Order: sequence, then C-alpha cells, then structure tokens
Amino acid sequence: MLQVSTVPELRAALQRMPRPVGLVPTMGAVHEGHLSLVRQARADCATVVATIFVNPTQFGEAADLVRYPRPIEKDLALLEGEGVDLVFTPSVDEMYKPGFTTVVHLDGPALGFEGEARPGHFDGVATVVAKLLLQSLPDSAYFGRKDAQQVAVVRRLVIDLDIPVTIAVMPTVREHDGLAISSRNAALSEEQRLAAPAFFLALSAMRDRYRSGMQDAAKLEEGCRALLAREPLFEAVDYVAVVDEQTFAPWTGGGPCLLVAAVRMGDVRLIDNAVLD
Amino acid sequence: MLQVSTVPELRAALQRMPRPVGLVPTMGAVHEGHLSLVRQARADCATVVATIFVNPTQFGEAADLVRYPRPIEKDLALLEGEGVDLVFTPSVDEMYKPGFTTVVHLDGPALGFEGEARPGHFDGVATVVAKLLLQSLPDSAYFGRKDAQQVAVVRRLVIDLDIPVTIAVMPTVREHDGLAISSRNAALSEEQRLAAPAFFLALSAMRDRYRSGMQDAAKLEEGCRALLAREPLFEAVDYVAVVDEQTFAPWTGGGPCLLVAAVRMGDVRLIDNAVLD
Repeated sequence: MLQVSTVPELRAALQRMPRPVGLVPTMGAVHEGHLSLVRQARADCATVVATIFVNPTQFGEAADLVRYPRPIEKDLALLEGEGVDLVFTPSVDEMYKPGFTTVVHLDGPALGFEGEARPGHFDGVATVVAKLLLQSLPDSAYFGRKDAQQVAVVRRLVIDLDIPVTIAVMPTVREHDGLAISSRNAALSEEQRLAAPAFFLALSAMRDRYRSGMQDAAKLEEGCRALLAREPLFEAVDYVAVVDEQTFAPWTGGGPCLLVAAVRMGDVRLIDNAVLD
Repeated sequence: MLQVSTVPELRAALQRMPRPVGLVPTMGAVHEGHLSLVRQARADCATVVATIFVNPTQFGEAADLVRYPRPIEKDLALLEGEGVDLVFTPSVDEMYKPGFTTVVHLDGPALGFEGEARPGHFDGVATVVAKLLLQSLPDSAYFGRKDAQQVAVVRRLVIDLDIPVTIAVMPTVREHDGLAISSRNAALSEEQRLAAPAFFLALSAMRDRYRSGMQDAAKLEEGCRALLAREPLFEAVDYVAVVDEQTFAPWTGGGPCLLVAAVRMGDVRLIDNAVLD
C-alpha cells in the first residue's frame, strides 16, 4: 500500500494505477463500517484509494475536533489488510491552502436534522467531499448508509456540480446486538453501551410495522418516539422523522423513504436510520 | 463543428476527441474578446470546446436576463469560423435539474466591487463555471482579463476545489479608440459611445503614472477619479480601486496589482481595468 500526503503525489500515483478507481473517504478511526466500503470497492475496482482526513470544517465545536480519535498506525494496518492500494493522508494545510475561501453549500437535503443540529456541518462535508472527489477523480466513491443525510447531500452535490463519479451506498454495519458501528460508540459508558441497542430495536420495530401496512409517517414517528421514551438513558431525542430518501423532505407517501432519528446519551449523540421498504 | 446540448452528449463527443482540450465558456453574443480566447485555445490545444449558456443565476434582475442578446446563429458561425471543434449549448433545464440546490460560494476575491454591486452574481458565476469545468474536464480554460474580478474568483475556486485545469487569462480586447469590447457597448447611445473611451484613457493615464513611479494606491485612485469626473456622461463612478490581482484586497505595495473601476452611463454600467506593472 502506497501512502501519499499531497495532491500532486496522489495524482501522479493514480496515473500509474489501473482504472476503474474506487474511493473510500474516511476520517480515520477505521471500523468495520469503513472496511465494508473498502471490501465493496475492492470487489468493484482495479484500484482502491482510501483517504484519511479529519476535516476541521465539518466540526461545530473545536473541542470535538481535538478529541476526535486519530489512531493512524492502526488505521493504515486495517486498510492495508483489506487490500487498499493507495492511502491519501493530507494535512489540513494541504487541503486548505492560504487564502482558501470556497464553500460548497446545499439547501435541500442538507436542511433540518443533522443540518439543524450541527450548523455548518454539511457545508464542511460538501466542500471536503467535492475536493476529495476532484483530487482523485474516481470512477466510484463509497459511503455508508448510517449517515443517510450525508449520503443524500453527497448524491445531490454530485448531480448538481456534474462531478463524473458513481456514488455507491453500502448498508449500515452493526454490532451483534444491532447498534450501528460508529467511532462515537467508544465514548459510551458500559451502562450506556448496554442500553444503546434499544435505538436500533425501536427503528426496526417501526420498519416491521411499516411492512405490515402502517404506512403513515406521523404514526410511525409517534410509535418510534414512544419506544425510545422507554429507555431512560436516552436523555433526549433530537428528531424522529420519516423522510424522502433523496430530498430529506417529509415523506408524503411516494418513493423510497427512511425513518431517521438522533438520540442523546450523556455527551454522546447517536444517529441511525431504517430503510422503509 | 459539432453542436451538442446535453452533458452525456458532450462527454461522449469529448471521448472521441484528442487531448489536450481547451474550453472557452461564453454567454453567447460572441465578440472579438471571445474570439481572442478561441484563437489562443486553438493554438494551445488539439480540441477546442466553446460553451454558450446565458446563466440565469448570475443575473441580479430578471429584466437584464430577458434583455440579454442571444444571436445564436451568428455566434455559431463566428465560433466555427475560428475552428471550434465542439460547441455546447445546454438549456437552463439541462444545467439546473429538478431539485438543484448547490451553490459554490466564495468570499475573498468575490467580496466588494462587482460582488457588492451585483449581489449573488459571483455565486452564480462560481457555480456555473465549476459545472462547466466538471462537465468537460478540459486541460485549459480561457477567460478574458476585462472581467478581472471574475478571473480572480475562478482562479481561487479552481485552487480551492482542486479542479484539475489550467486557467489561461488573455488580455482585454479593445475597439480602435480603446473602449474594452463588451456586449454592453451595444446599449450605449451614439453620444455615450463617443464619450466612453475616456474610461480607458483615465485608466491608461494612471498606469503611466504608476510606471513613472507614483506607486501610491490612494493617489492613483484619486487621480483616476479626477479624470473620470471630467466626462459629464459618466453619471456615476461605482468604484475606483488599486487591488491585489489575486485577492482583490486593497493593494499594499507587494505583488501584481490592478486598477479596477466601474462607471455608469445612463442604464449601462461599464467595467474595465489596467494592469499596473
């Protein structure tokens, strides 16, 4: 596995590697979710590129950025173990040159939910994803469905800016008890960790109700909230909503939809979703 | 000359054409300024692509957009006459699909001057230029120095978003009396047209003073304003400023600089600049 840290090195390395190229962007702290993306890229593409960049512009609070885990040696070993060909580990200065001032901004799918809870977050995400895609110009780029709103934002920006790439979305990878794998899980106490699967169970129960015919957004949301309320360690429920998968607008009965939710356990904010189909 | 109107057609056509590819983006109403860009692209590149798209998102007032000239047959003939290989003439619906919601926004060089006089203008410019560059992924793209602030915005966005293209900037093309060629010139009355070269003469006089050693921004601006004030048909002077060529920040003595200005003659707003070197 070749490691490079500048855009010219990245482009030069890619020139020598066969197409198609698959890109797996990460912020490091690599877990099974990322590795499932790498495995799919490896199955689809002649060349697999992973990026590790903890993007400061998508963090609301400086403390979160400082606290973000950066186990770089372990990350590199995990990526190499899955057959990544090239890993791009730029510095903040490499990504944001002196005078940097461009923001890729979306309304539409970036409004509400995570966009509301984390002001500026999707500006940071859209801008850095546009940069990562344009630096390597992959044939495909891989994202996890756990961050469903991020997926909707990335899909939209790729259409809107005519970025020539296929966005592949892989299912959420879960622990054995159903908790969606996330770097945030490590911050849960033992007690919180034991309670956390109730989040997945609530979403799954409503997916089952949907499949049994209760296809009414308000009732599904209400039912989900009632289930989440039964777990006292869920100290707050930021949102529960049935949304259109592409626009994140309230679902009105047509097209693919998602049940999305965010809950708080102490300082930790968990997000998850269920595909209603 | 091949003409296409959709992005898939454009990409398919480019697949069959040799590299390097040069792109000349226009809003039509093709004049000698555009043709100078085409000639340079023709000299530099194996394939020359021109685009004709009157971009609604960079117009402040709907009336200006409706009034904008669209002599498409004449434009096509002029471009073909200069050896353009491929012309891309997308519709508004082709450029902005249902649900379009992405804006490429810059502060920095987009602040002040035209950015202030035309709110939202550079958002529209940056977004459409990003799209045009990503649709065709040219090796080089050609812009005229008359729109110096637009050039600074495009250069910045290309750096910031890592768009793999070289931006080539060509000198302002002028009428025999010095007036910078612009589609707006056609809107001048005969009397205004006769007076208009005083704009170029004022800028040139200050460039000469700069070269003779008067390298003080405030004095150059004051001198330019005094010269412009002598032409009664210049009913207003929107701005006169010595700016850093790249950042459009006030020039403080180091690096390449420009004297930029905008004047109003009736309904017509003229912009021009002089390179101070």
